[in-house]
Amino acid sequence: MTDTFTATIERSAVLADRLEAEPQNYRVLTGDRPTGALHLGHLFGSILERVRLQNTGVETFVIVADYQVITDRDSIGDVRRHVLNAVTDYLAAGIDPARTTIFTHSAVPSLNQLVLPFLSLVTEAELHRNPTVKAELADSHRALSGLLLTYPVHQAADILFCKGNLVPVGKDNAPHVEQTRVIARRFNERYAPVFPVPEVLLTAVPELPGLDGRKMSKSYGNTIALGMTADETAAAIRKARTDTDRRITFDPATRPGVSALLTTAAVCSGTTPEALADQIGDAGAGRLKQLTTEAVNGFLAEHRRRRAELAADEGYVLSVLRTGNATANAIGDATLAEVRTAMGTDY
Amino acid sequence: MTDTFTATIERSAVLADRLEAEPQNYRVLTGDRPTGALHLGHLFGSILERVRLQNTGVETFVIVADYQVITDRDSIGDVRRHVLNAVTDYLAAGIDPARTTIFTHSAVPSLNQLVLPFLSLVTEAELHRNPTVKAELADSHRALSGLLLTYPVHQAADILFCKGNLVPVGKDNAPHVEQTRVIARRFNERYAPVFPVPEVLLTAVPELPGLDGRKMSKSYGNTIALGMTADETAAAIRKARTDTDRRITFDPATRPGVSALLTTAAVCSGTTPEALADQIGDAGAGRLKQLTTEAVNGFLAEHRRRRAELAADEGYVLSVLRTGNATANAIGDATLAEVRTAMGTDY
Repeated sequence: MTDTFTATIERSAVLADRLEAEPQNYRVLTGDRPTGALHLGHLFGSILERVRLQNTGVETFVIVADYQVITDRDSIGDVRRHVLNAVTDYLAAGIDPARTTIFTHSAVPSLNQLVLPFLSLVTEAELHRNPTVKAELADSHRALSGLLLTYPVHQAADILFCKGNLVPVGKDNAPHVEQTRVIARRFNERYAPVFPVPEVLLTAVPELPGLDGRKMSKSYGNTIALGMTADETAAAIRKARTDTDRRITFDPATRPGVSALLTTAAVCSGTTPEALADQIGDAGAGRLKQLTTEAVNGFLAEHRRRRAELAADEGYVLSVLRTGNATANAIGDATLAEVRTAMGTDY
Repeated sequence: MTDTFTATIERSAVLADRLEAEPQNYRVLTGDRPTGALHLGHLFGSILERVRLQNTGVETFVIVADYQVITDRDSIGDVRRHVLNAVTDYLAAGIDPARTTIFTHSAVPSLNQLVLPFLSLVTEAELHRNPTVKAELADSHRALSGLLLTYPVHQAADILFCKGNLVPVGKDNAPHVEQTRVIARRFNERYAPVFPVPEVLLTAVPELPGLDGRKMSKSYGNTIALGMTADETAAAIRKARTDTDRRITFDPATRPGVSALLTTAAVCSGTTPEALADQIGDAGAGRLKQLTTEAVNGFLAEHRRRRAELAADEGYVLSVLRTGNATANAIGDATLAEVRTAMGTDY
């Protein structure tokens, strides 16, 4: 663990306290790429944290980053369905459109315009240092697109257009925010102090593996989508690969399948995987799967009930998005006006 | 001369004929970077060609590319003054705001938003192939900024936001338009046929050297700014370095100073440098300078008269720019709406 990272953790703990005391001083931006259905990993990994922040009184913005879909692929896919599904899941999970602005990247031209002056503040070498860009550069299968190369700058525009000063991230993503901090500082020094220098809020969320113990990913087919029915969930868990040892123990290294189910069930029922393993004892993988199915379906029952209601009323979901887009445009226009004044381009 | 370039020249001749016959089928975009005062090189190199195209009935757009100022420098300078000066020179030269839309890059968010989807259509390797980017990469004095790296894509957005289908360029700049053509084709293939694939119109303008025979450039101090007075012009020409051979001949290789003055005077008086040299005979550099001063001041007299009138009425110049910006925004918003429909991001 590096010193910088230790400092980030310490700073984050201080921030978490301040946030409780003075939520009105913070503006948070988070979001998702609408590449497919949101799943249990998204819910525990970020959506519930957004709901928690919203409910403490922090002003929150959730960006559905539709342009980010085409950073690493040629097809944008059924982006409309994925966007509406995401908004539906946000609302079902407790995001309240009266307190949180949900909007799409492509709907806010003033946000996107910020990408141009921001691009002047970074070098190509700095762009290459971003972890996502670096990983893609290392992958020789695909030429790096201009959109992926400039990804750290879009992220800066996403965070700074609304003057977000707090970015909740998992521990692997803290370095991503650094480029945004650099851009904010350089703009302020070069022109005028328009932007906050946002801070990282490390979120201590349980890491939820996929049903096979690997990283949860739609492309591995190891996810439980929030939109699945109880029966589809049961089927997905039934198909999960376990082993023949009837004694259930929590050991992710040697028993990835069994341990993934234990973690999933534990997270959904508010216990620990170890406690759950003890409870099952030597009742075998069948009992484990039964318990996991009950835990997941129990946990998601209310989410799914609200989700079904919302899905039946696309007009409402669309109206939430359009209102969010209008709010984001008003905020983006105001920020862009300040940027123009600072740069002297307000003719 | 490559085959491609020969083909470009032939195609350009065909286009020039078509343009005369059916000007209403063409939309032209050109522009300048507002880094300083416009000079005689700009007037002959592009502004008069714009006026000519406008007067044939082609719909023309002139972008004052203010964001391009910061592609290769940290300071945006007195951008407001440079922008207003450029608009003043356009109007003085005969650009008619009733027929030509003059606008600034930073004033049209929908144009700038196009940069994002367009960036997904090009690779980093392709960006490196652009002549301007290549030249900057070869210059080790300065790290390549993200804004310069993505310059070919901004140019595509500038041309395509108004569905420009014709780009007048000097012979060195034909390759620049190629990336725009690639982006238009890829967008149309991937989503829907929204954009024309613009063609290059080679402009046969006299190449005007600086007063010292080098490339005309503000940084060499060898230009005649359109805004100079007649006396300032005389002083600049008086200071130009010539030689002691009283016999005036046109020989750019061995007599750069003398030849540059001959070219300048000839272009401004509608004759050839050779004819002018014969006319001067062995009357020496003093006579050459006197003739050049008369030719330039005579040629610019009317421009300067109109320029002074306009400069005294900043409110009018600003109103032209603001009307142009409003027109560009309306056109950009309409194009962006089509792009959203094509991409399926019209929620």
